[in-house]
Amino acid sequence: MTDWIKIDTYVRQWLKEARENILDSFNHTLNIQTKSDRNDLVTNIDKETELFLVNNIMKHFPNHRIVGEEGHGKDINQEDGIIWIIDPIDGTVNFVHQQRNFAISIGIYENGRGKFGYIYDVVQDELYFVEVGKGAFFNGQPIPLLEATKVENAIIGINSSWIISNRHIPVGNLHNLVRDSRATRSLGAASLEFAYVATGRLDAYIAMRLSPWDFAAGKLLIEELGGVVTTVKGETLNLLESSTVFVSNKALHNEILTNYFNTSND
Amino acid sequence: MTDWIKIDTYVRQWLKEARENILDSFNHTLNIQTKSDRNDLVTNIDKETELFLVNNIMKHFPNHRIVGEEGHGKDINQEDGIIWIIDPIDGTVNFVHQQRNFAISIGIYENGRGKFGYIYDVVQDELYFVEVGKGAFFNGQPIPLLEATKVENAIIGINSSWIISNRHIPVGNLHNLVRDSRATRSLGAASLEFAYVATGRLDAYIAMRLSPWDFAAGKLLIEELGGVVTTVKGETLNLLESSTVFVSNKALHNEILTNYFNTSND
Repeated sequence: MTDWIKIDTYVRQWLKEARENILDSFNHTLNIQTKSDRNDLVTNIDKETELFLVNNIMKHFPNHRIVGEEGHGKDINQEDGIIWIIDPIDGTVNFVHQQRNFAISIGIYENGRGKFGYIYDVVQDELYFVEVGKGAFFNGQPIPLLEATKVENAIIGINSSWIISNRHIPVGNLHNLVRDSRATRSLGAASLEFAYVATGRLDAYIAMRLSPWDFAAGKLLIEELGGVVTTVKGETLNLLESSTVFVSNKALHNEILTNYFNTSND
Repeated sequence: MTDWIKIDTYVRQWLKEARENILDSFNHTLNIQTKSDRNDLVTNIDKETELFLVNNIMKHFPNHRIVGEEGHGKDINQEDGIIWIIDPIDGTVNFVHQQRNFAISIGIYENGRGKFGYIYDVVQDELYFVEVGKGAFFNGQPIPLLEATKVENAIIGINSSWIISNRHIPVGNLHNLVRDSRATRSLGAASLEFAYVATGRLDAYIAMRLSPWDFAAGKLLIEELGGVVTTVKGETLNLLESSTVFVSNKALHNEILTNYFNTSND
């Protein structure tokens, strides 16, 4: 019998500890003179954070499996048992250049079904948490279900680079979407962009290449709130494969898929 | 004799008061059910904040002039005397949709020369302050001078909409810049994007249409740190006119201007 309360308790404790280590390292790092030195140092923090999480998971839950950015679990090709899909620092470029706007992302699945999702904005000390079937929470407060929005009122999270070229949606369609929407934003950390959609700060988030650790937690969060997470073609995401990702409330997801991503009309 | 200490003291006090009012209103507003109701309410906060600032300036400094987004000072066409160039809520769309990532921006000029600049990230309680000739500060801590960066390592702040079409730089040139740079971001609040460049979180910020109240404070901040603020053609900004804006450290400004914005080579 899996002790889910124990898992949740440990994760929250590890997130707080990881935060202390990261902020403490920043205090030292920011005294370093040049940007290039600083880059190396913060990249070390990234690695240390992953080691800290992986070692703790392996110590306390030796039968669980781990899929992560730094190569852990590369041999995992089926979803049996309990899998932790983790990104110790989602938004590495922000982490290095901004020392903010990055998150720790942890999705925990059992036999392919989501159980817990954690997206932790380390600097802000903001935790987006979902227990599948039990609700989604922002720092302990329940997050309301996603509201229907229309393209004309929508803030779309999408990076400029996809608008210039991508292999999945004709750029002309994306240009129309950008023109018709109220505004676009790009934060540069996928899990936080899921969290922004979850809390209504963005209405949609579109990315042309994400890995499982970028979306494992966010997918659970959005779905718990009645939102939809698919590829840009509207297909179900595979938990163990990289793919395009399109996140939104149900109404807007449908409108964008039909009017902008339905490339059969081109 | 202008009492600059008095001015600075008042501004800081007003910023704190404005913050309390805004956060207090958010607490009420966020209990409202639907997004459309919420939009109206937060837009009222925007107006109240401007009134609060304008009334205070007029009361305490009746001889000063005010240029602001909501129509104050539209008749001002010369830079004599002391001018306050204010945006009570820079990043209105973020303000309405996100209740974060907006700022109060105040630039104070005397006879066309910058004296004080304040960019106040209200939710974060982060004040970027410059006293021209005396230094730039982030929450009271001196901000170091901007470091030279290269396009290949640079994070560029630019919105997708400009990359699709604009009247100033051929989009192909912008596409090259986006491709060659390390990453792009879009926060959606000009004054904060100036502040991000000032603190090294972005290496450049490019916008195709900003008003004086979007850049009046940020320009002083960046120039104090050795950075450069011009139009995308490299021209000096006019304090009383809208224009394109291109903000960066000196080396990167030069590289981008020469290799990407020098449209005479097209």
